Amino acid sequence: MARIAFIVANDFEDAEFRVPYDEVKKAGHEAVIIGVEAGRQLKGKKGKEVITAEKSVKDVREEDFAALVIPGGYSPDHLRMEIPMVGFVRDFFKADKPIASICHGPWMLVEADIADGRTVTSFPSIKTDLINAGARWVDREVVEDGGLITSRKPDDLKAFCAALLRQVSQGIAARLESPLAPKATSDQQPSVHH
Amino acid sequence: MARIAFIVANDFEDAEFRVPYDEVKKAGHEAVIIGVEAGRQLKGKKGKEVITAEKSVKDVREEDFAALVIPGGYSPDHLRMEIPMVGFVRDFFKADKPIASICHGPWMLVEADIADGRTVTSFPSIKTDLINAGARWVDREVVEDGGLITSRKPDDLKAFCAALLRQVSQGIAARLESPLAPKATSDQQPSVHH
Repeated sequence: MARIAFIVANDFEDAEFRVPYDEVKKAGHEAVIIGVEAGRQLKGKKGKEVITAEKSVKDVREEDFAALVIPGGYSPDHLRMEIPMVGFVRDFFKADKPIASICHGPWMLVEADIADGRTVTSFPSIKTDLINAGARWVDREVVEDGGLITSRKPDDLKAFCAALLRQVSQGIAARLESPLAPKATSDQQPSVHH
Repeated sequence: MARIAFIVANDFEDAEFRVPYDEVKKAGHEAVIIGVEAGRQLKGKKGKEVITAEKSVKDVREEDFAALVIPGGYSPDHLRMEIPMVGFVRDFFKADKPIASICHGPWMLVEADIADGRTVTSFPSIKTDLINAGARWVDREVVEDGGLITSRKPDDLKAFCAALLRQVSQGIAARLESPLAPKATSDQQPSVHH
């Protein structure tokens, strides 16, 4: 049984919180919702989920958790402006623990400056931000490069949760020293118009 | 009298469309709402504004306009995935015409790869994305570096509109070859936690 941190702010993508949260608990782990302030209500962007932050990021430490989950939607646009949140993400990276981020979640990898040299995926709108941060971007339902687990959208949640749960029980994946072969030659274009 | 293009998708910041749109018309210019599809209804993220795209970006050309306005909110997160929109922005840049973008609007400067070497401001959440795209980021209500006019948030709209209308009537500003002196030493930190 492991304790897994979920960092969330308003406008999170509802299913991208709900599905991993339920899967983590179903697998027998503990899931903790961490916000900027404990006790604050947080609303999903689709209006399906209203959750409450159990802990403030100021009152938790990476040492207390086995893995980190970053749901997408516009929650990461809020979280990336919070210095303790960015530091919390960076701490999991330094500790070689799984960081599972989906959709717009990988913005936090940009902000924590931990995407450089890594292979990732994301919602396509932030592809250029990830490439400009030094990442190699590919279009796959899930990418695991060491402890960095990334997916694109709610449709990818099954593969995303499976990767997270496997890394929690079996340790982080191997580094993709030799990057994933792109699915199409367009995978690494720095931006669409070049 | 000039014709000024507004590029908009859903989830635009209501005032960041409405205020410049009304100011442009009050100054005697023509304002045209351009979306991905003509006739599509577009909703502001605060639910105050519902507008209709008058033209599809596929049916307009930069040559027909004197300046471009990019309202913020999450509209630019949608627009940046549309190749014709990104190309339209780039065309104004190539033609040395004013591009006024506020809040999250400068994401389109990142996507069009025209922020490199420029001094800009934005909503603080996208500061790192702009710096990673090669821009110099400062915390000011409005920054004019050649034709690139940038502001941070709805509170800055007065200065933003004044800069836009001045550039439309008097031509684009001088390049900031010697960048603006930062207001604080923290202005150019690549990310908050370093």
